[in-house]
Amino acid sequence: MRTLGAEMIEIASGRCRIAAPILPSATQQHGYAHAGLTFAIGDSAAGYAALSLMPEGSEVLTSEMKIHLLAPGKGDRLVATGSVVKPGRRLMVVRADVVAETGEDRVPVATLLGTMVPVTG
Amino acid sequence: MRTLGAEMIEIASGRCRIAAPILPSATQQHGYAHAGLTFAIGDSAAGYAALSLMPEGSEVLTSEMKIHLLAPGKGDRLVATGSVVKPGRRLMVVRADVVAETGEDRVPVATLLGTMVPVTG
Amino acid sequence: MRTLGAEMIEIASGRCRIAAPILPSATQQHGYAHAGLTFAIGDSAAGYAALSLMPEGSEVLTSEMKIHLLAPGKGDRLVATGSVVKPGRRLMVVRADVVAETGEDRVPVATLLGTMVPVTG
Amino acid sequence: MRTLGAEMIEIASGRCRIAAPILPSATQQHGYAHAGLTFAIGDSAAGYAALSLMPEGSEVLTSEMKIHLLAPGKGDRLVATGSVVKPGRRLMVVRADVVAETGEDRVPVATLLGTMVPVTG
Repeated sequence: MRTLGAEMIEIASGRCRIAAPILPSATQQHGYAHAGLTFAIGDSAAGYAALSLMPEGSEVLTSEMKIHLLAPGKGDRLVATGSVVKPGRRLMVVRADVVAETGEDRVPVATLLGTMVPVTG
Repeated sequence: MRTLGAEMIEIASGRCRIAAPILPSATQQHGYAHAGLTFAIGDSAAGYAALSLMPEGSEVLTSEMKIHLLAPGKGDRLVATGSVVKPGRRLMVVRADVVAETGEDRVPVATLLGTMVPVTG
Repeated sequence: MRTLGAEMIEIASGRCRIAAPILPSATQQHGYAHAGLTFAIGDSAAGYAALSLMPEGSEVLTSEMKIHLLAPGKGDRLVATGSVVKPGRRLMVVRADVVAETGEDRVPVATLLGTMVPVTG
Repeated sequence: MRTLGAEMIEIASGRCRIAAPILPSATQQHGYAHAGLTFAIGDSAAGYAALSLMPEGSEVLTSEMKIHLLAPGKGDRLVATGSVVKPGRRLMVVRADVVAETGEDRVPVATLLGTMVPVTG
């Protein structure tokens, strides 16, 4: 997260928002955010959304995650909103939506759907 | 790719291998490669495998990709092998397998299955 | 669809709802709807949602589809609501949510996310 | 399975093959096997492959499954080969490949990748 310059801008029960600047180092040939960056912040937002429903000191691991890339990640920053579709002790179904922001403008960039596994210390 | 220190170590018809060192900057709390790095090199290997079957000057975009994380990305470097499951003019089904290498040791770290869309200049 | 006793109960621009009774012939050992039935009506609802945005006489094929099974398909009938996440000429990203209904009761049973390919006659 | 006329034709450690005839009742407008049938036998083959690695009396549930449809399910019967990508006590990563057979001819029809959850009685 720190490497990406990402920061959590909202955390609530079953919900988390993470923002990351679209820096030149994370862009492809065309100046768009690389799929890897989009995946990373969507996956992180989904993971923290799951974590928000678990006892303190817990951790989560991504078991599997599917991402659909909807539009080029072009703009000032990416904002990912993660939420929990179905909580559970053994696994949690999560989703995240990622938008690219440029000033007031917001364009949907990706949607993710996957499974987190709770890990208790 | 360059940001990740990744390099292509093999390219053949419908197949591509990419290696990336597991650097401290791309690891999580535990010193394992972050899911984002594993995704990025798996996705890239799958993309170049698709590209290898297309006319020169073509490009591909990831439409959707699913990743299963099988074990922590722990070791010297990650190596992703991408291949084409089903070629096509409108879309290509691709897969990639990622292993973590430590000396002679190889541990399966992730498997990816997804769709690439050819883009002709 | 007919084999499953399924019927379309709503069709609008980018949206479709399909209902199917949970018959003994489509249940597993435990009397729950088989994953295959749940997949079939979710996939169909998503497909018709895509079709609703296309010119008359068009068809769609499922390219890939991911389903998360959230709870046993137990009750009188399954109702799937399909919608279009991202329309496109070459491919359409679609989703569907399936609930099991028993009288007034509704339990989320599955969520699907996938890709449809338009086929023009 | 019985409704589909499906039968298990091979079971080994971490591997299972299931065959089902392509009957008129399971075909679409064009006489091809419906995606629901292809999903059902692929999912079943993957599930039994997982079950083959578990103690007797165990059961498995599909947590999530992704299917790529590669070609129309046209022919005499569908044959699905399921295998275990990564075994585990809490969840098992599985895959299946489905082919359509017509006499000696075999055409790849679908590939599936997903997660099974062991359920112990």
